[in-house]
Amino acid sequence: MIQGPSSVVADLGQRRYPSPLAARHGLPLDAEYFVSDSTRVRYAVEFDGSKEVLHDLSFEKAGPRSKVFFNPTETRAAVVTCGGLCPGLNNVIRSIFYELYHNYGVRKVFGIQNGYLGLNPDAGFEPKRLSHDDVEESHHLGGTMLGSSRGPQDPDVMADFLRSRGINILFCLGGDGTQRGALALQQAVAKRKLPLAVVGIPKTIDNDIPFVWQSFGYDTALEKAAEVIRAAHVEARGAINGIGLVKLMGRDAGFVAAGATIVSQEVNFTLIPEIPFPLEGDGGLLRALESRIRDCKHAVVVVAEGAGQHLFEGKPRTRDESGNLLHHDIGEYLKQQILAYFKQRGLPCNLKYLDPSYFIRSIQANARDRVVTDQMGRQAVHAAMAGKTALLIGSLHNKFIHVPIGTAVASKKQLNTKGDFWKAVLSVTGQPNW
Amino acid sequence: MIQGPSSVVADLGQRRYPSPLAARHGLPLDAEYFVSDSTRVRYAVEFDGSKEVLHDLSFEKAGPRSKVFFNPTETRAAVVTCGGLCPGLNNVIRSIFYELYHNYGVRKVFGIQNGYLGLNPDAGFEPKRLSHDDVEESHHLGGTMLGSSRGPQDPDVMADFLRSRGINILFCLGGDGTQRGALALQQAVAKRKLPLAVVGIPKTIDNDIPFVWQSFGYDTALEKAAEVIRAAHVEARGAINGIGLVKLMGRDAGFVAAGATIVSQEVNFTLIPEIPFPLEGDGGLLRALESRIRDCKHAVVVVAEGAGQHLFEGKPRTRDESGNLLHHDIGEYLKQQILAYFKQRGLPCNLKYLDPSYFIRSIQANARDRVVTDQMGRQAVHAAMAGKTALLIGSLHNKFIHVPIGTAVASKKQLNTKGDFWKAVLSVTGQPNW
Amino acid sequence: MIQGPSSVVADLGQRRYPSPLAARHGLPLDAEYFVSDSTRVRYAVEFDGSKEVLHDLSFEKAGPRSKVFFNPTETRAAVVTCGGLCPGLNNVIRSIFYELYHNYGVRKVFGIQNGYLGLNPDAGFEPKRLSHDDVEESHHLGGTMLGSSRGPQDPDVMADFLRSRGINILFCLGGDGTQRGALALQQAVAKRKLPLAVVGIPKTIDNDIPFVWQSFGYDTALEKAAEVIRAAHVEARGAINGIGLVKLMGRDAGFVAAGATIVSQEVNFTLIPEIPFPLEGDGGLLRALESRIRDCKHAVVVVAEGAGQHLFEGKPRTRDESGNLLHHDIGEYLKQQILAYFKQRGLPCNLKYLDPSYFIRSIQANARDRVVTDQMGRQAVHAAMAGKTALLIGSLHNKFIHVPIGTAVASKKQLNTKGDFWKAVLSVTGQPNW
Amino acid sequence: MIQGPSSVVADLGQRRYPSPLAARHGLPLDAEYFVSDSTRVRYAVEFDGSKEVLHDLSFEKAGPRSKVFFNPTETRAAVVTCGGLCPGLNNVIRSIFYELYHNYGVRKVFGIQNGYLGLNPDAGFEPKRLSHDDVEESHHLGGTMLGSSRGPQDPDVMADFLRSRGINILFCLGGDGTQRGALALQQAVAKRKLPLAVVGIPKTIDNDIPFVWQSFGYDTALEKAAEVIRAAHVEARGAINGIGLVKLMGRDAGFVAAGATIVSQEVNFTLIPEIPFPLEGDGGLLRALESRIRDCKHAVVVVAEGAGQHLFEGKPRTRDESGNLLHHDIGEYLKQQILAYFKQRGLPCNLKYLDPSYFIRSIQANARDRVVTDQMGRQAVHAAMAGKTALLIGSLHNKFIHVPIGTAVASKKQLNTKGDFWKAVLSVTGQPNW
Repeated sequence: MIQGPSSVVADLGQRRYPSPLAARHGLPLDAEYFVSDSTRVRYAVEFDGSKEVLHDLSFEKAGPRSKVFFNPTETRAAVVTCGGLCPGLNNVIRSIFYELYHNYGVRKVFGIQNGYLGLNPDAGFEPKRLSHDDVEESHHLGGTMLGSSRGPQDPDVMADFLRSRGINILFCLGGDGTQRGALALQQAVAKRKLPLAVVGIPKTIDNDIPFVWQSFGYDTALEKAAEVIRAAHVEARGAINGIGLVKLMGRDAGFVAAGATIVSQEVNFTLIPEIPFPLEGDGGLLRALESRIRDCKHAVVVVAEGAGQHLFEGKPRTRDESGNLLHHDIGEYLKQQILAYFKQRGLPCNLKYLDPSYFIRSIQANARDRVVTDQMGRQAVHAAMAGKTALLIGSLHNKFIHVPIGTAVASKKQLNTKGDFWKAVLSVTGQPNW
Repeated sequence: MIQGPSSVVADLGQRRYPSPLAARHGLPLDAEYFVSDSTRVRYAVEFDGSKEVLHDLSFEKAGPRSKVFFNPTETRAAVVTCGGLCPGLNNVIRSIFYELYHNYGVRKVFGIQNGYLGLNPDAGFEPKRLSHDDVEESHHLGGTMLGSSRGPQDPDVMADFLRSRGINILFCLGGDGTQRGALALQQAVAKRKLPLAVVGIPKTIDNDIPFVWQSFGYDTALEKAAEVIRAAHVEARGAINGIGLVKLMGRDAGFVAAGATIVSQEVNFTLIPEIPFPLEGDGGLLRALESRIRDCKHAVVVVAEGAGQHLFEGKPRTRDESGNLLHHDIGEYLKQQILAYFKQRGLPCNLKYLDPSYFIRSIQANARDRVVTDQMGRQAVHAAMAGKTALLIGSLHNKFIHVPIGTAVASKKQLNTKGDFWKAVLSVTGQPNW
Repeated sequence: MIQGPSSVVADLGQRRYPSPLAARHGLPLDAEYFVSDSTRVRYAVEFDGSKEVLHDLSFEKAGPRSKVFFNPTETRAAVVTCGGLCPGLNNVIRSIFYELYHNYGVRKVFGIQNGYLGLNPDAGFEPKRLSHDDVEESHHLGGTMLGSSRGPQDPDVMADFLRSRGINILFCLGGDGTQRGALALQQAVAKRKLPLAVVGIPKTIDNDIPFVWQSFGYDTALEKAAEVIRAAHVEARGAINGIGLVKLMGRDAGFVAAGATIVSQEVNFTLIPEIPFPLEGDGGLLRALESRIRDCKHAVVVVAEGAGQHLFEGKPRTRDESGNLLHHDIGEYLKQQILAYFKQRGLPCNLKYLDPSYFIRSIQANARDRVVTDQMGRQAVHAAMAGKTALLIGSLHNKFIHVPIGTAVASKKQLNTKGDFWKAVLSVTGQPNW
Repeated sequence: MIQGPSSVVADLGQRRYPSPLAARHGLPLDAEYFVSDSTRVRYAVEFDGSKEVLHDLSFEKAGPRSKVFFNPTETRAAVVTCGGLCPGLNNVIRSIFYELYHNYGVRKVFGIQNGYLGLNPDAGFEPKRLSHDDVEESHHLGGTMLGSSRGPQDPDVMADFLRSRGINILFCLGGDGTQRGALALQQAVAKRKLPLAVVGIPKTIDNDIPFVWQSFGYDTALEKAAEVIRAAHVEARGAINGIGLVKLMGRDAGFVAAGATIVSQEVNFTLIPEIPFPLEGDGGLLRALESRIRDCKHAVVVVAEGAGQHLFEGKPRTRDESGNLLHHDIGEYLKQQILAYFKQRGLPCNLKYLDPSYFIRSIQANARDRVVTDQMGRQAVHAAMAGKTALLIGSLHNKFIHVPIGTAVASKKQLNTKGDFWKAVLSVTGQPNW
């Protein structure tokens, strides 16, 4: 059978205990309920029926294994949340707690305080034992009950910290920087031969982690972003030659801008990092916007924060404290350029600029994301209890999979500008195919 | 190449016109943008990596074809909505209108009034020409702007009606009854050798149409249903030995009840038509509920309207005007049984019964469903303009496909009680694996 | 100065301590910030400018007093919630806690468990000391964190319970039954000469307590009820001769039905307990509904649960466990009557019945009610700390007042069918002035 | 009887026609339903019971008069919306239309396009006759269906425009600039002796028009602003030493900032134009913020756009196209000052700045504002039909009143920093009493 580069998922060792889920749910150990390590999920689902088909990429399917590596009564698990907020963090924490506590019978579950900083003893934050009361209502609340921080900590320091507290399982919720940190930590752990599973749960409001079809919080972000676009549209309609300009998240990938455009149905131009659109000249944005205003008297432009960086060529960029390159402010720049252009063309316009920023990511998870977070959390527990490590929970075609962290952080996902998703944006906006 | 039984999609004839989308979006006719009839989407994405893999089912991928059958300037298209309401009907109508009008340049788009009844001249409802003003804000509003009705009309009468009004394309939004009607209509149309495409768009809040991974309105229904479950949970928590009982939609399939359970995270027992749960006795619901109340002092039970019909054995059932068998009222029955049981056990309880009924289905589409409806509508236009007929727009793994109507109505989709979805419900509720 | 019958507010005794609010907010004790007992709020704000005006009713204004009766460091306060749920209960509890804890410096605040039952030692529920963690996020959650129960307890038992736990202040959140219980308790307390303040906070989703202009939870209920009416309207529009029938709360007063009608703007007939509308005959509801259907093809009827009881004359009524008389089910009755009438008239109609029941009252408080609950809670603290007792916090013209409990429970508030509010309903519905 | 300076409401002349409302609602002309010109509403509702009370201010009560000035069948009414958006504009337009059309029988209702510009023939916008279809669903949608514009037009030009189109009634929705324009227009109309009523409906999201207790859109704005504050709080909680800074509307009055603070319950410092708070030094904001961060590790600051202008002393201000003075950007300034201060103090902090701007005002009206807008619109119709002119619809204590425009525009309403509302802010925030 053909298998792709992603097939090697690390294991801590032999699984010696029957899964507590068998007793919990009244199932035999050979029930169809349990997932075998040989069950895989294909990456590609489309093929050309007129040609020979080759498949070279598939992933191990996530799910409960019939035998587990860890003895629940002796296991101490911990959760850490790193980086910026994302709708659904508390939901993931809650589902991890519930699955461990009720279904596997692991009673010692801890919350690491303030991200990886909470694994550095110098910071002075001790892991907090979690109880029902802590998590019970948390799925109704945005943010992270554990606090967060940015940037890496020394993997050896973190490994020693976990050893000294007797932690056997660590769930790392965070973006690609966090997952890189998780991998480094797992390597420090392996060096020490600790029986400690490190399982990543990908968190990115930009939806830009590979092999994660739809990261949690993304659907919520679209919903809220579309509310803001609606406001921009209403403002544009309410004024003569009204232009609504909305800046949305998306450092390197336009998923939020594109998705919110389809949800909104009221955007005329969607600008994403993947497409270096022309600003000036005949085929440029400004002229297209002028046509739109002359024909329809109002327009909405949505721009991802990472779009149009080619327009700043030669201007230096700075970094934030996690080491991410900061982008030039395309929203403010476009606002100025549009105003200047319309002034020069002698066409009065009425531009309203909206930048919702953190408002998109600090809210509670919506219905769809409550499903995704619940599953992400529980699949992570299944993987960890089975003794799998150095992997993160990905998803393909609504199935959850095990992705070696190394595979996941080797690249960033971008929007395929020839794919169905971008086609949908072109249909909705009617914008030029730059 | 292996192809499944679903591969034959009917065509009206040779496609003679270059797609107007090429000019509209500035693309050559051989652009990757256009989808070939030989592009297919697999049904199965999981396999056992330790065995030889056989695939016997795949579907034609939906999408714009490079050449079209209909000449846009001469085409008259119409939309009809049938059966009960579902969030997103207006969104589908709007996206069909926009795709036809702006992207394909078809200016004559009509709304059939009041379902199939509007295709019967005796009813006296003339098709209404749709304009921008009619649809512009409609995606913000629940219901159907075209009205609806239940039950079939004579296919020959409908075919003659469409011929006399010069309609070339009919989009049929409705459930399996509606799609059966669409198929009968298409046969009457074919008998008359009319160049008229009939394209179905599946509408079912129960999500029970095969080869439609997630029907539109379903995610919205889950969101609203979870709000109601939340109320039941809050009531149960606020009283001593509080029990919240919620009846949800789901005549033959438990997708709404199961999905809302995962969204809610606060349900203890989910009862679906696919599982004839025992009510009494040691392993029965009532005893399990008693245990839950004794341990936790509160509980939430969610029941699909089609669940537990085995408890009414021997009692006759009636039919509604569309011919659907009506179920016995399991909600009211459970309420009485639970109250009687607790009374008999001498355990006071405080039961609150909630039946949101139509409230779940009459609201506007949420973010996710705005994406699904938009795509459903536009893919239907692509199919129809290419001269495809007697098909409906299905979806697999977030890809849209062409499903021959006959294939779609040959069976009903039910929840796989050994699959991932039901496993998720078991994890969340901790209920017995009946 | 003329004062009404409501002027006598009971006091525990001399206020010996300067208000801690002076230090807290950096104010002198004679600051305008503090409210004097002689400040009063008028009941009537309208007058006939052509006549001599007499005012005979005014109330003591609520607010912080410059001196207080209780020494904060020695005070133990408790909160109890009784009867059915209402949006905002947790908000009131939270604001009481915050005002006591932060502003007055009272560190010992307790929650009585499960209503008045929690003041009966036989029930075995000990008061729970409240902490920040308990209340911090509670304003985002519906229900009551303290639990509730129905029905009275022996006042002497409750008084002894409070004495034995050293409680000095009790806040009673509940409807008129609860307030009667509070008054009885206060009398038992007075008999024992305990320095214990009993302060009521009126809770009624029906908005039917006198001298409480708008009770908390009412605005939230209107918002949610209007959502349900919207669904009924959308269903009615989507069907041929569609009728949406919605039953709303309102045992003896039509405030919810009337208010939701104005919010909705889509109701054609609003039926309230205050107006015994004719059902049959020329001026009756059925004939008016028929006219509406013939003219407009759709209609919405909203009925308060206590409306139309005159139609059941001669049929016996039962009581719930709090002793409230149960009403006949007017919703189900109207549904049957309408269906029978239209059938007899040979006019097909399509009736959809919605009964949201508890869904209206179990949700979290909306913006307006978050303001009302915050103020209700804090004014109650001001009153209690000043040693006032046997009063409840009322409101007139957006001002908060002290109402002796005896005055408040002497009558029920009903909708003035000659007043501005009902005029607004007539304007919106265009219904006959029965 | 004592009457205040506001008592003179202008009348076009003798009312010759019985109100059509009598027939519409089946009432005699002397029914209590009709409001007499001598019915008045007091401004002051509080008094000191220990002193002699003097009242010198009252207003004519709004409502239907038993006789009207205009003959409905010959009347042509128009509505114009000016200035920035506000939630509820479409609701007011809709209620004006419905009251005129259905209740008074005035069938000719027009929408003036794009504000006062639409009353200048040079702009080329002809009034648009409104129909049911135009307004039916409009109460669910934000913005203004009529478009808007800023700035005044020549009153004589407008008066001639209205005369030439035969308009008898003009409803002017807008802020104080708009109302000044309405007064100038009415004077031009009076000069021409036209039987034309000009009735203002105050629109101000800042809630700063005198004798308008709560302007429409204000409650909606609070609700949305509180959502944004929630995001700021969640961000602050999720980071180490997190500070959420939110800028809200409020040019000269802090009603939105103060109201949203009470709704939110999670603000620590609320800065409003009425209080020139000290920034630096011992009692200043920065030091207080530092204390808060040291004690609690997180804080939220809300600043009205017009607050802190004293900090820019000596720096010149510019004007917008309506002539309003533009404020210095206090949000951006505070952000810089806070960051600099914490850096200088060697205390790392994590500041997140949110500026929702137009997002607050472009949304649809919430439940409360749907009531207010409905009543504002209908009361305006009653006044206009009675031939009253040069007045606007105000409100006191939840009663609607007639305010001569001259009285309303003579001053701006500001928050009384010694009143109940600001006391509530102090209680909630615990901030210094600057």
